[in-house]
Amino acid sequence: MFDYIYSFCLELGEAIRIPAFFVFLECIATIAGAVSGVRLSAAKQFDVFGAFIVGTGTAMGGGTMRDIILGLTPFWMTNPIYLGCCIFGLVWVILFRKWLVKQNNTWFLFDCIGLSLFNAIGIEKTLALGLPYWAAICMGCVTGAGGGVVRDVLMNEVPLIFRKEIYALAALAGGVVYVACHSAGWKVEACAIISSFVVIAIRMLSVHYHWSMPKMRAED
Amino acid sequence: MFDYIYSFCLELGEAIRIPAFFVFLECIATIAGAVSGVRLSAAKQFDVFGAFIVGTGTAMGGGTMRDIILGLTPFWMTNPIYLGCCIFGLVWVILFRKWLVKQNNTWFLFDCIGLSLFNAIGIEKTLALGLPYWAAICMGCVTGAGGGVVRDVLMNEVPLIFRKEIYALAALAGGVVYVACHSAGWKVEACAIISSFVVIAIRMLSVHYHWSMPKMRAED
Amino acid sequence: MFDYIYSFCLELGEAIRIPAFFVFLECIATIAGAVSGVRLSAAKQFDVFGAFIVGTGTAMGGGTMRDIILGLTPFWMTNPIYLGCCIFGLVWVILFRKWLVKQNNTWFLFDCIGLSLFNAIGIEKTLALGLPYWAAICMGCVTGAGGGVVRDVLMNEVPLIFRKEIYALAALAGGVVYVACHSAGWKVEACAIISSFVVIAIRMLSVHYHWSMPKMRAED
Repeated sequence: MFDYIYSFCLELGEAIRIPAFFVFLECIATIAGAVSGVRLSAAKQFDVFGAFIVGTGTAMGGGTMRDIILGLTPFWMTNPIYLGCCIFGLVWVILFRKWLVKQNNTWFLFDCIGLSLFNAIGIEKTLALGLPYWAAICMGCVTGAGGGVVRDVLMNEVPLIFRKEIYALAALAGGVVYVACHSAGWKVEACAIISSFVVIAIRMLSVHYHWSMPKMRAED
Repeated sequence: MFDYIYSFCLELGEAIRIPAFFVFLECIATIAGAVSGVRLSAAKQFDVFGAFIVGTGTAMGGGTMRDIILGLTPFWMTNPIYLGCCIFGLVWVILFRKWLVKQNNTWFLFDCIGLSLFNAIGIEKTLALGLPYWAAICMGCVTGAGGGVVRDVLMNEVPLIFRKEIYALAALAGGVVYVACHSAGWKVEACAIISSFVVIAIRMLSVHYHWSMPKMRAED
Repeated sequence: MFDYIYSFCLELGEAIRIPAFFVFLECIATIAGAVSGVRLSAAKQFDVFGAFIVGTGTAMGGGTMRDIILGLTPFWMTNPIYLGCCIFGLVWVILFRKWLVKQNNTWFLFDCIGLSLFNAIGIEKTLALGLPYWAAICMGCVTGAGGGVVRDVLMNEVPLIFRKEIYALAALAGGVVYVACHSAGWKVEACAIISSFVVIAIRMLSVHYHWSMPKMRAED
């Protein structure tokens, strides 16, 4: 069913077999993250270089935080394709500026795929290091939702995920499902696909029905 | 005098003997950090999830920065109790919202204990890696005061410790005392207790008498 | 032509031969970074301690980010001279507050030297770990321009390098030149000096002629 790509992980000292289809989705998701960061930078009239940095931070910030926390070399330093995706996202926004609004649904879909896929990758990588399930779920959320926090901190705004819609919570729910499948002995592909379905469904329903977490109430 | 708990440190490859009383204080201090972050988030009307992240960042941000800088696996990834303390802090704020103001003195005391204890832990962990005394003092300050900086950056505010009262300076003074005791060959418990006394005393006096560092003067 | 200093790198497990002249320049550049951070903090009326932290973050934030990403012990933890330079920068601003404006050109020159030198150090350190050329260029930019981002995030402002003048781009151009020289088999000193010349020239010309990157255009 799957073609495989062999990716060498420096620290684990072994090649990891990754379905080629996942790598394709990962590129799509990275581009979607970069586009999101670049568009917000453009709205603030950053220069081209600043927009590229914010786009890169959005696309790869979560995974970089994960790798730094886990003590691994950041994923994008051993394979140039991720930086290439970020450059592609920047160029896309510059070229198709006027049509981006019409593409909103597509980018939203790609962003959902990114959240679910990055979540699964974060969980798998953490489990591969022998860390416990609950730590893997945390690292999945960091991988999926961390990029948005990096973007908002760089743009000097209060992180969106603290205030709007269900985002990290979708990753959390997907993470619980992933770990449940994993502990039942299912294969990586099955865990990833089922948990991704959960993440994407929750995220889409929450945006469609304007679900959000209850707000905290101030003391006074 | 002390009961001991054995905590296994992955990187040092050996169990560290920690007085059980310290672990109890550490939990209290973690809860106090989380409560501080959650309360400020509530004042900004973050949602429950955002408040939890800010609370967790406040309670564990300093120690996480320390472990990342030292190249260790973050302390909270090998023991779920710290995340549990953060969840406890969140629930406490939600349940006792109206009585929190009356608890202000108690939370302030716990926060002081946290500053002094996190400071001592940061110093001890750095020295255990064979790094020099002055680097250990820096890591003590990062552990004790870093959480507040993480909180303020996430909430998009200028870090409080740059503008108000004596906070990190208390950790710095305590660090000097700790290192002096350590170089005199005293036991870990003695160093920690004496330096904690210094930190808590300075912090309490500075709040009571409104001590603050002199402000920088602008050039114009 | 050069006197050498031997600096021991923990992780590489060997002494690196560094021209003494480079170490002198590195101190000058560290002081310049600290002065820049402290001056901006003074304009915002931070207290002395806050100004010191912002100054230190400006001077050493880029190199610390690089070392954390590369999995190395931060450079300033094994040699106290860098912290000493930051303290020197703080004291200088306090003592010579009224004359700093007259020193603007000098500090600008030192800042340019810092950008070029930190860039070269970041590249060299990354290549020494066996990482690819393009990753080394990225790490050079992080080392050179990261401190300014840390400063602006700590001060709760939108990072300057996203909006003004050519800064990180100069580091990028210098990095390409460095890597070209390196792949031609030239010695470290030659690569560093030629790439530094490029960085300093671009930076000075861009400030003099008010060059800037084109701004992104908003969608509406």
